[in-house]
Amino acid sequence: MRIRVVNPNTTRAMTDLVGRSARAVAFPGTTVEAVQPTMGPASIESHYEEALAVPGILEQVALAEALPPAERPDAYVLACFGDPGLDAARELASGPVVGIAEAAMHAATLVGRRFAVVTSLGRTVARARELAARYGFAEACVAVHACELPVLELDRPGSQARETVTEYCRLAAAADDVDAVVLGCAGMASLCREIGAEIGVPVVDGVAAATTLAQSLVALGLSTSRAGEYAPPPPSP
Amino acid sequence: MRIRVVNPNTTRAMTDLVGRSARAVAFPGTTVEAVQPTMGPASIESHYEEALAVPGILEQVALAEALPPAERPDAYVLACFGDPGLDAARELASGPVVGIAEAAMHAATLVGRRFAVVTSLGRTVARARELAARYGFAEACVAVHACELPVLELDRPGSQARETVTEYCRLAAAADDVDAVVLGCAGMASLCREIGAEIGVPVVDGVAAATTLAQSLVALGLSTSRAGEYAPPPPSP
Amino acid sequence: MRIRVVNPNTTRAMTDLVGRSARAVAFPGTTVEAVQPTMGPASIESHYEEALAVPGILEQVALAEALPPAERPDAYVLACFGDPGLDAARELASGPVVGIAEAAMHAATLVGRRFAVVTSLGRTVARARELAARYGFAEACVAVHACELPVLELDRPGSQARETVTEYCRLAAAADDVDAVVLGCAGMASLCREIGAEIGVPVVDGVAAATTLAQSLVALGLSTSRAGEYAPPPPSP
Amino acid sequence: MRIRVVNPNTTRAMTDLVGRSARAVAFPGTTVEAVQPTMGPASIESHYEEALAVPGILEQVALAEALPPAERPDAYVLACFGDPGLDAARELASGPVVGIAEAAMHAATLVGRRFAVVTSLGRTVARARELAARYGFAEACVAVHACELPVLELDRPGSQARETVTEYCRLAAAADDVDAVVLGCAGMASLCREIGAEIGVPVVDGVAAATTLAQSLVALGLSTSRAGEYAPPPPSP
Amino acid sequence: MRIRVVNPNTTRAMTDLVGRSARAVAFPGTTVEAVQPTMGPASIESHYEEALAVPGILEQVALAEALPPAERPDAYVLACFGDPGLDAARELASGPVVGIAEAAMHAATLVGRRFAVVTSLGRTVARARELAARYGFAEACVAVHACELPVLELDRPGSQARETVTEYCRLAAAADDVDAVVLGCAGMASLCREIGAEIGVPVVDGVAAATTLAQSLVALGLSTSRAGEYAPPPPSP
Amino acid sequence: MRIRVVNPNTTRAMTDLVGRSARAVAFPGTTVEAVQPTMGPASIESHYEEALAVPGILEQVALAEALPPAERPDAYVLACFGDPGLDAARELASGPVVGIAEAAMHAATLVGRRFAVVTSLGRTVARARELAARYGFAEACVAVHACELPVLELDRPGSQARETVTEYCRLAAAADDVDAVVLGCAGMASLCREIGAEIGVPVVDGVAAATTLAQSLVALGLSTSRAGEYAPPPPSP
Repeated sequence: MRIRVVNPNTTRAMTDLVGRSARAVAFPGTTVEAVQPTMGPASIESHYEEALAVPGILEQVALAEALPPAERPDAYVLACFGDPGLDAARELASGPVVGIAEAAMHAATLVGRRFAVVTSLGRTVARARELAARYGFAEACVAVHACELPVLELDRPGSQARETVTEYCRLAAAADDVDAVVLGCAGMASLCREIGAEIGVPVVDGVAAATTLAQSLVALGLSTSRAGEYAPPPPSP
Repeated sequence: MRIRVVNPNTTRAMTDLVGRSARAVAFPGTTVEAVQPTMGPASIESHYEEALAVPGILEQVALAEALPPAERPDAYVLACFGDPGLDAARELASGPVVGIAEAAMHAATLVGRRFAVVTSLGRTVARARELAARYGFAEACVAVHACELPVLELDRPGSQARETVTEYCRLAAAADDVDAVVLGCAGMASLCREIGAEIGVPVVDGVAAATTLAQSLVALGLSTSRAGEYAPPPPSP
Repeated sequence: MRIRVVNPNTTRAMTDLVGRSARAVAFPGTTVEAVQPTMGPASIESHYEEALAVPGILEQVALAEALPPAERPDAYVLACFGDPGLDAARELASGPVVGIAEAAMHAATLVGRRFAVVTSLGRTVARARELAARYGFAEACVAVHACELPVLELDRPGSQARETVTEYCRLAAAADDVDAVVLGCAGMASLCREIGAEIGVPVVDGVAAATTLAQSLVALGLSTSRAGEYAPPPPSP
Repeated sequence: MRIRVVNPNTTRAMTDLVGRSARAVAFPGTTVEAVQPTMGPASIESHYEEALAVPGILEQVALAEALPPAERPDAYVLACFGDPGLDAARELASGPVVGIAEAAMHAATLVGRRFAVVTSLGRTVARARELAARYGFAEACVAVHACELPVLELDRPGSQARETVTEYCRLAAAADDVDAVVLGCAGMASLCREIGAEIGVPVVDGVAAATTLAQSLVALGLSTSRAGEYAPPPPSP
Repeated sequence: MRIRVVNPNTTRAMTDLVGRSARAVAFPGTTVEAVQPTMGPASIESHYEEALAVPGILEQVALAEALPPAERPDAYVLACFGDPGLDAARELASGPVVGIAEAAMHAATLVGRRFAVVTSLGRTVARARELAARYGFAEACVAVHACELPVLELDRPGSQARETVTEYCRLAAAADDVDAVVLGCAGMASLCREIGAEIGVPVVDGVAAATTLAQSLVALGLSTSRAGEYAPPPPSP
Repeated sequence: MRIRVVNPNTTRAMTDLVGRSARAVAFPGTTVEAVQPTMGPASIESHYEEALAVPGILEQVALAEALPPAERPDAYVLACFGDPGLDAARELASGPVVGIAEAAMHAATLVGRRFAVVTSLGRTVARARELAARYGFAEACVAVHACELPVLELDRPGSQARETVTEYCRLAAAADDVDAVVLGCAGMASLCREIGAEIGVPVVDGVAAATTLAQSLVALGLSTSRAGEYAPPPPSP
C-alpha cells in the first residue's frame, strides 16, 4: 500500500518531519512518500497563505494520479492543520484523501468525549473551530488555544517551542474538562507522544492519525464517493 | 463610494453581467467597477475550479489595494456563489468584502424565515449547504435544488435556461414551505426580478444583494475586523 | 425613498436620537422619518414593557400604511434592541421591516465571525441571546454583557454612561475572542463610531445598521414574503 | 390549589372549552378558573392578533395578582398555542405560568422521542416551529401540519372539523415516523382522547398538559426564577 | 393512582429516601411504592455500575407488570440521575416511565430559561451533559458542577454533605447566569427545598419532579407510544 | 497486535461472521479474536435486549483484561450496531474500545459528506439516529432506513435478505442525496463490498471499520482517556 503525504508548504524540513511522523505508524507493507509543492508559501499561517498553497497541493495530487498504476498512491494525507484543498483533492484523487485536522479530531473522539486543540498562532483559532464544526465536532471541540508560536519556530534549534507547547497542552487539559488534546499544527508532530506521556491525557498528532486512517480506508476498500460533489471535475473548456 | 465587483472566473460576458447587476442597485454617488482575474478557470463548477480561481481573485484584490487612495475601492463584492477566497480577501482588503452567497442569504432572511436555493449543477449543492451553515443559516436554508444547467449555458443565446430556472424556482417555492428563493449562481443575476414577479415570492440575486450590503457597510464606517483571524497576513519569508 | 424609523417607546429624546442615527447613514435621495407611539412605556427594559409597547408600534405602522401612496414609507426600522413586534409589523407593512437587533447582528457577521453584545440591564441579556438564536447567530454571538445602565440614563446630561459603555465594549473585545461588538440598546446609537475608534474593533449600532439594510432591501426590490406566515392578517370578525 | 386558565382571546365558548379541558385533569383539591381578556381579538391566527392579545392576557394576570392572597391563583395556564405573552406573564405572576404549546411539547417528549404538530392555519406553522426551537424541541418536533381550519370553525356545530383534524393526525403519525401527535390549537382540546384512541398513538392537548404541569410545579414548590430576566419589571416612570 | 419508584441501586436507605421524596408530592389519591432491585451495585457512580444496575431495574418493572391489574403501577419513576435503563423500561411498562434527570430538566425549564446541574462526582458530569442533549436541553443546561461527594456520603450521619452541596448550588447560581439549579443525584432529594430557600433561586429535585410528571401523564391518559422504538420487545427465541 | 471482537449476542454463527469480517481487514501482524458472552440474548433488536446484553459484554472485557499481559487484547471492537455498553467497556479496558456504529459513521464521513444508514428493524431506527447525534454526525446522517428484516434472518440459508438489503441501499443512495451508505447491523457485514460494487457508492460495514480504527488507535499509542468519565470505576463496597 502506498500512502502519499503532501506537505502543503515548501519547507523541506517540514516535509521530512511529516514523512517521519507518517512512517512511524505505517503498518507492515505500507510505503509512505512525503512530497511538497514546487511553489507556494513556506508556511501557512493565514487564510491568504492557505489559499495560495492550494494550487501546489493539487498539482502534487495531479502528478501522482498521472503515475503508472503500480506507482500511484492508494491514498493521500494532506499535512496542514487547516486541511487546505481537501475537497478539491478529493475530486482529483482516485483513492481516499485525509486531512490532518480531520483525522486528529476523529481520533480524539474515539478516546474521549471532549477535546481541546493547541495550535500555533491566535489567528488560526477560528479556522480550527470552523473545521471542527464542519466535521461534526463542534460540541466535542470545547476549546482552541494558541501558543503564539510561528510554525517554523517549532523546528528552530534551541527554541523553547517544546516547553511552550507542552505547557499549553497541560493547561488545556486542566482547564477545559477535556479527555484529550489535539496538536493543531503539523510542525508539532514529533512532540506528540512525549507530551502525552508527560501530561497524562491522550495527545493526538494529525499527521500520524491521518496516516492510520488513510491506511484504514484502503484496507476497507473505501474511497471518496463519486455520487455527487466529489465526482471528477468536468473538463474545462 | 467605489465598489469593486470581482468576477472570480475569466469569462468576460460574466464580468459584464455582474457589473450590470451591481450597477442596477448602486446608490447615487456609488461607482461600480467589475473586474476579473488575468488567469484561472472560465467557470467554477467544482471544488477544483474554485480552488484554482482563488489566486486570481486575490491578485485582483491586491492590485486594487495598491492603487492610489483616491482610486482604491471602498469595498469588494466576490461574485461567485461559492464565495471562493472570501476569508483570504478579507485579510488583504482594507475595506469590507462581501460574498454573493453570503449576501443573498442575509437578504433572504430579512424578508422571510426560510428560503430555498436554486443552483446550477447538483455537484454544487453541498457547497451551498456548507455556506449556509457557516453563515448561520443552516435552519433557514431548507432546501437546495439543482437545475443541472452549466453556468455558461445560462448566457447562451437561444438556451432554455430562463424557463428552466423559473420552473425550478416555482417548484422550490411550492414544495418547501419557504418564504423566499435564492438564486445560487452569479450567472442567474439578470433573471431575478422577472422570476420574482412571476412566482410571487421574493427572489434574491446575490450580486445585487452583495452590492447593497457592501455599500451599507461603507456607509456604516465598518470594515473587516483586524482583531484576530482577519489581521493582514504576516510578511512571508 | 422613505424610511420610517419607529421608536417603540414614548420618549421624545429617544425618537430624536434614533432619527439622527438613521439620517447619518441615509443615501442621497432617502428621507428618514422618526416616529413614536402615542401611548406605551417610556422605555423598554422588561418582557412586560416590551409586550405593552407592541400595540403602539403596530399603530404607527398601520397609520403609515394608510397614507397616500406617495407619502407611504418604502420600509420601516423598529428601533428597540428587543425587536418587539417585528413579525406582526411585517404582516401589516407593504414594504420591508427591519429590527435593530437583527440588523446589528447581520452587520457584525459581515465584518467578522464572532461578536459580543453590550447591553443595558442584565435582565435583557436572555432576550438578546434569544434573538441571536432566532436569526441564526447563536454561535456567532459568543457573549452578552450588561452594563447595568437603565436606558434613559444613557441620555442624562452629566451621566458616566459613555465611559461605562466604552469600558464594557473594551472588556468584551478583550475577553471573548470576538471580531466585533454590537451595542445592545438604541440609546447607545450615538456612541458607536467613537467607541469603535477607541477600542480598535468594529462596533455596530443597530439603528444605523437597520437603516442601511432597509435601504438595501428597497433598492433590491425586496419586501417581506407573502407566501406564508407574513401574509396580511385575515380580517377580524 | 387554584389554577387560573387564561384564554387569550375574547371568545366565550373558547374560554368555556379550555376551562372544561383543564378541569378534566385537575387533581383532587385543585380549583380551575377560566378567564378571558376584556378586550382583544376573537381568535389568534396571525402575529398581529397575537400581539394585540397580549395586553389583555397581562391584564388578567395583573388582576389576579391583585386579589387577596387566599383567592390568588397558585399558577396560570396560557391557553393559546402560540404561547403569547408567556415571558411577560412570568414577570407579573408570583406563581408559575405555563403555556400550552410548551406544555404539550414537554408531555409529548415524555411519551416518545419525536412528535408532529397538527395545527389550524398554515400561517401559524412557523410560529409552532419557532416555539419548538425555543423550548429545546427543534429535533423532537419533526413536522408541523396545518389543517387549514380557522380556529372558530372547530367549534361550529355541523362542521367537519373533527373529521379533518383526525385525518391530519392519522396522516402525521403515518408519514413522519413520530411517536406522538400534538394538537396545535386550544380549540382542538376536546378532540384529544378520541383521536388518540382512534389513531393508536398518544395525542397531546396542550390545555390539559399545561394544567397538569402547573399543578406539578405548585406541588414541587417551584415558581418562576427571580434571578434574572423574570424578576418583577421595574416600576415605570 | 399507583406510582412505583424504582431505586436503581440496592441501598435500602436510598430507597426509603426516594420514597419519602416522592410521597411528599403525591396528589390526593396517589399511592407511592418505592422498590429496589434484588441484585446490583450499592450506588451508581460510573458507566460500569450504571450498566450493571439496569437488569435489576428491568426486573422490578417486569415484576410489577406481572401483578394483577388492580395492583399494577400506573406509572414508574426511575430514581437515578443517569436515567439508566429508561428506554428499555419504556418497552416493558404499560404505563409511562419517567427518569429523574429528565424530569428535573423539564421542570427547571418551566421556571427559567437556563439551569445548572450540581452533581456528585466529576466523572458523572459528562453523563449529565449527554442526557441534557438527548432531552433537548443542551442549550438550557449551561453548566454541570461536581461536588466530588460520593453518593453514599450524602446520607452519612455527621457528614458535611449538606453544606457542601448548598455551597456548590450557591456558586452555580452566581457564576453561570442561570435561572435554576438542578440537583444531579437522587441522594440529594431531601436537601432541595432548604437549599432553594437559602440561595433564592429555584432548586429542582428530580425524584419529586418525576413523581409529579408521572402523575401528570396518568391524569392525561398518556403512556409511552407503541408506534416505533418503544413497542413491546419481540419474544426472544 | 491483538484485537478482540466482542459479539454482544450469544449466537455463534454471528460471532464467526464478525470474526471473519474483522480478519479480512487485519494488517500483517494483527491477531483477531472473536468472542461472545456466556449468557444474554441471541440477538439485539430492542432497548430491552440491548440492556440485557451489556453485562455479558462487560464480562468478556473483564475476562480479557485479567489475562496475562502477553495475551491481553490491545483493543476491543463491540460488534453490535447499537454500540451497547461502549462507555462502560471503556472504563474497564486498558486499551481502546471501538463500537461498530461509531466506526462506520466515522469512516463514512471520511469518504463523503452525507450518509444514510440501512438497518434491520424499524424499531432500531431511533437508536441509530441517537448514536449519530452522540458522535457528532447528526447532520451527516441524513436518513435511516429499515429493511424490516430480523437480524437472524440475514444469515438464514435461502433467505432473500441479500437482495432486500441491496435494494434498500440502492434506494437510500438514490433518494437521500448521500455520498455513502452505512450498513446498520453486524449481521450485514459480509454483504458490504458486494453491495458497494453493485450500487456504485461507498458502502460501509461497521465491523471492518471498527477493526481498522482499533488498529489505528493502537498504532498511534492512543487509548481511552483516564482524565474524567472513563477513569476505571471505583471499587464497589
